[in-house]
Amino acid sequence: MVRRNFIFDTIKGVFRKYGYRQIETPAMENISTLTGKYGDEGDKLIFKILNSGNFIDQNELSKFTSEVIERIWKAKEEATNSSSDSEIEIDLNEPIRNLIEAEKALRYDLTVPFARYVVMHQNEITFPFKRFQVQPVWRADRPQKGRYREFYQCDADVVGSDSLINEAEFILIYDEALTKLGLKDFTIKINNRKILSGIAELIDKVDNIVDMTVAIDKLDKIGLNGVINELLGKGFTENDIKIIEPVILLQGSNTEKLEKLRAALANSPIGLKGCDEVEEVLNYLASCRLQTASCELDITLARGLNYYTGAIFEVKTNEVSMGSIGGGGRYDDLTGMFGLKGLTGVGISFGADRIYDVMEELNIFPAAADQATRLLICCMDKEGEQFAFPILQQLRRQDVNAELYPAGAKLKKQLDYANNNHIPYTIIIGSQEMQTGLLTVKNMETGVQEKLTVEQVVTSFGR
Amino acid sequence: MVRRNFIFDTIKGVFRKYGYRQIETPAMENISTLTGKYGDEGDKLIFKILNSGNFIDQNELSKFTSEVIERIWKAKEEATNSSSDSEIEIDLNEPIRNLIEAEKALRYDLTVPFARYVVMHQNEITFPFKRFQVQPVWRADRPQKGRYREFYQCDADVVGSDSLINEAEFILIYDEALTKLGLKDFTIKINNRKILSGIAELIDKVDNIVDMTVAIDKLDKIGLNGVINELLGKGFTENDIKIIEPVILLQGSNTEKLEKLRAALANSPIGLKGCDEVEEVLNYLASCRLQTASCELDITLARGLNYYTGAIFEVKTNEVSMGSIGGGGRYDDLTGMFGLKGLTGVGISFGADRIYDVMEELNIFPAAADQATRLLICCMDKEGEQFAFPILQQLRRQDVNAELYPAGAKLKKQLDYANNNHIPYTIIIGSQEMQTGLLTVKNMETGVQEKLTVEQVVTSFGR
Repeated sequence: MVRRNFIFDTIKGVFRKYGYRQIETPAMENISTLTGKYGDEGDKLIFKILNSGNFIDQNELSKFTSEVIERIWKAKEEATNSSSDSEIEIDLNEPIRNLIEAEKALRYDLTVPFARYVVMHQNEITFPFKRFQVQPVWRADRPQKGRYREFYQCDADVVGSDSLINEAEFILIYDEALTKLGLKDFTIKINNRKILSGIAELIDKVDNIVDMTVAIDKLDKIGLNGVINELLGKGFTENDIKIIEPVILLQGSNTEKLEKLRAALANSPIGLKGCDEVEEVLNYLASCRLQTASCELDITLARGLNYYTGAIFEVKTNEVSMGSIGGGGRYDDLTGMFGLKGLTGVGISFGADRIYDVMEELNIFPAAADQATRLLICCMDKEGEQFAFPILQQLRRQDVNAELYPAGAKLKKQLDYANNNHIPYTIIIGSQEMQTGLLTVKNMETGVQEKLTVEQVVTSFGR
Repeated sequence: MVRRNFIFDTIKGVFRKYGYRQIETPAMENISTLTGKYGDEGDKLIFKILNSGNFIDQNELSKFTSEVIERIWKAKEEATNSSSDSEIEIDLNEPIRNLIEAEKALRYDLTVPFARYVVMHQNEITFPFKRFQVQPVWRADRPQKGRYREFYQCDADVVGSDSLINEAEFILIYDEALTKLGLKDFTIKINNRKILSGIAELIDKVDNIVDMTVAIDKLDKIGLNGVINELLGKGFTENDIKIIEPVILLQGSNTEKLEKLRAALANSPIGLKGCDEVEEVLNYLASCRLQTASCELDITLARGLNYYTGAIFEVKTNEVSMGSIGGGGRYDDLTGMFGLKGLTGVGISFGADRIYDVMEELNIFPAAADQATRLLICCMDKEGEQFAFPILQQLRRQDVNAELYPAGAKLKKQLDYANNNHIPYTIIIGSQEMQTGLLTVKNMETGVQEKLTVEQVVTSFGR
C-alpha cells in the first residue's frame, strides 16, 4: 500500500497541478449503461449483481411456468398417443437465465462511467471539464500473473475543449509525473489519427484503414516483412505497399518526419491537418522543455484507432523491457452513446501496475520515511512503559511516526517486530535508562548506537 | 472529493503516526465468508454477484428439470383420470433461486474482510498487527438521506495485543484527528463490558445482560422512567431496579465514578477488573493531556455489546446535534468465526459521513488551497496563449496549481470558469500585457487588482 500510494499520490498531485479535479463514481452502474460498449468479449467480462430480495422476474416466471407446463403436457400427450416411452428432452438454461433480474453491474473501466457522469451532470458542469479519477475496476477474467479481477485505473480527461494545449499538457503531465516517480529514460510517442487517414487516402483505401493501421502498428513486433505480408493478406496491393512503405519507415527528427509526411500527403487535406496538429503540439512543448521524456512522432502508433479521432499517445520506458506504461488520445464522441453528441475530448491513463513493476525492477521506490513508523520504543516492564509513554507522545507532537511495543514481550520479539515492519530506529527502556534519563537510539540497519537525552531524541527525530 | 480527501487524509495521517499500516482488501469476498455474520437482516442486504459465464448450476438444473417434468406429468395424469379441467398450480421461485450460482458478494463492512485477511495471512503477519483500512462498503438498502448503497468506512484495529496502551492510544487518535479536522468540543465516552457484567452479577441476571444493557443504553433518549419500564417489561424486578438505579445514575468525575463503582461492585471480581482496566487507560492519558476531547466514563454505553469484551468507545460532538461520530471497542474473538481462536483485538472507526456533515454545519472546511487551482490565465487570442504558456510552466515548476483557459472563448466565459471552479486568482493576457510584460493579477473574491512582472507573479505564487 505504501508503494501504491506513492505512485497514485504522485500522479494525483501532478493532475491537480494542471487543473484536473478528482471525481469518483459508484462501483455499480446500470447494466444497460455498460453493455455494448466493450465488444462481445468485453460484455462477457462484466460482473453482474443480483437484484436484492427476490431476483426472479415474476411476470416472466408465470409465462415461463405456463410454457413449460404446456410443453411437457403436450409431450405427455404425444407419448401417450404413440405409446412410446421416450424421454422428454428440454433445455431450460436460456429461459431460466432470462428470468433472473440483475440490473446493476460493477464498472469495467473508468471511461464509460465518466461519459455517463458528464451526460447526467451536463447542466451543472462548467466546460471545459477537466477531471481525473483513480478507482478500481472489475473484470470477470481468469486471474493470472499481471491480470486481476480487481485492479486500479488512473485516468485524466478534458471534455469540451478542442484546444491542442490540452494535448501538450498531457505530454507535460506524463513527463512530470514519471520524472517524479524516478524514471530516467522514457519516450512519449505521439501520432494523429488524421495522418493515418491521410495515408489511407493516399492508396484510396479509406474503408480499410483499420486493417492498415492494425498491420503497421505491429512493425515493432513482426518487422517490415511481417507487416507487408499481413497487408497483402488483407487485400492491399503491391502498389499500395510501394506507396505506404516509405511512409512507414520514415526516419529522422520530428521536424524531418513532418516535412517528409507533408510532401507525401500533399494531396490529402485531412493528412495535412494531422501534420499541422502534431506540429502545434510540438511547438507548445518547444517553449517549455521536457524534464526527462523524449517525445517522438511515430506514425505506426494506432492503439484503439476506432475510438480516437485526433492525437494518439503512448508511453514506453527505455530502462526495462515492458509494454506501454501509459496511453490515450482524442475522441470526438465519448458521450454520443448516451445521447450527448459533438462533445470533443482528450484523455490519458497511467498503467499503474506496470509502473509499479518497472519501479520495482529498477529499485527506485523511495524509503517512504514519511508514511512508515520511524522509531519503536521497547520496554522491559510496566514501569518502562509508564516512563516511555509521555516521550512517545512528545515525539508524535513533533509529527514523528512512532510506536511503543507494549511491555511483557521478550526483547527479541520486540526487535523482530521492528525488523519485520522495517522500522529503522529503536530505543530500549531499561532501569538504567530510567535512572540516568539517557536513551540509547539504535540504527537497526547499521547497528550504530547513540546515547541521547529525551530532549535530544525529540529534536533529532522531529522536523 | 476535496473535502472528503481532507477528512480521510487527516485521519490516515494520524493512524500512521501511531504505527497503523494501511491495507486494502478486494471488493468481492466469497459469499460464505460474509453470510451469517451480520444477522438475518444484514444477510439480506449483501449484494451478490452472479458467476460469470453460465451461472446456472447444471447438476441442480437437471434435477430441477426432471422434478418439474414428473410433477407436471403426474398432474396431467390426474387431470386425465378425473376428467377435470383444473389448472396446475406450481411455484418455481424457490427451486429456481437454488439453481443460481453466485459465489461472490460485495463486502458489507471492513471488519469481516479484515478477520478473513488476518486468518489467511496469520503466518506472514507480525503480531501485534496494527492495520487501518479506508474503503467503500456496499449494502442493498433502500437509499435515503444519509443512507447510501455505497459508502466509505474508516477503521483501525490492533490484533494480538491485550495491552491497554492500545485503548489509550485510540483515545489519543480520536483526540488528535478530530482536533486536526477543526472540531472544538467533543466527548469520548468510554465504558467496559466487564463493568456491565459486574452490574448484571449484582442482581444475579448474568443471562439477561443484553436486555439490561440495551435498556440502560437508552437513558439519554427515554429517560430514567423509560429505562425502568423497559427493564420491568423484560422481567427485571423492582428490587433489581433498586440496586441498579444508583449505578446507572452515577455522577461526578471519572475518579469519583470509579470509586463509587468499586464500592457497588465490591463482590464482583469481573466488575472490579473492569474498573481496573478503565483506570489504567485513564492513567496513560493522564501522563500526556488530551488536546481537545474530554474523556468520560459512561457506564450506560453499550453499543454492540455481544461483540465487545473489554473497552467500549463512542465519540460525540458537543457543537451540533448529531449521532455518534465514532466508536469501537475490544473483542476477544474476531477471528474465531474463521477458525483462529483466542486472538484478542481492539478497534475503532470514524463515522466519516457524519463528520462531513458536522464540519459542513460548522463551516470549518479549510479553503483547501493546496489541492485546488490557484490561478487561471485567460488569453484573448493564440498569440496570448503562446506568450502565457511558458509562464504557466514556470508557475507549475514552483508547484503552483495553475491553468490556462484555451484561446477562443469570450472573456466572460473564461471568468465564469474561474468562478465556478473557485479559482481565487486570474491573469488576463492582452496585447498591452504582452508589450509591457506587466501582468494584472486579479483577486476574484475581493476584485482587487495588482500589476506585477512575470517574475513577481512567479515569486508571489510560488512557495
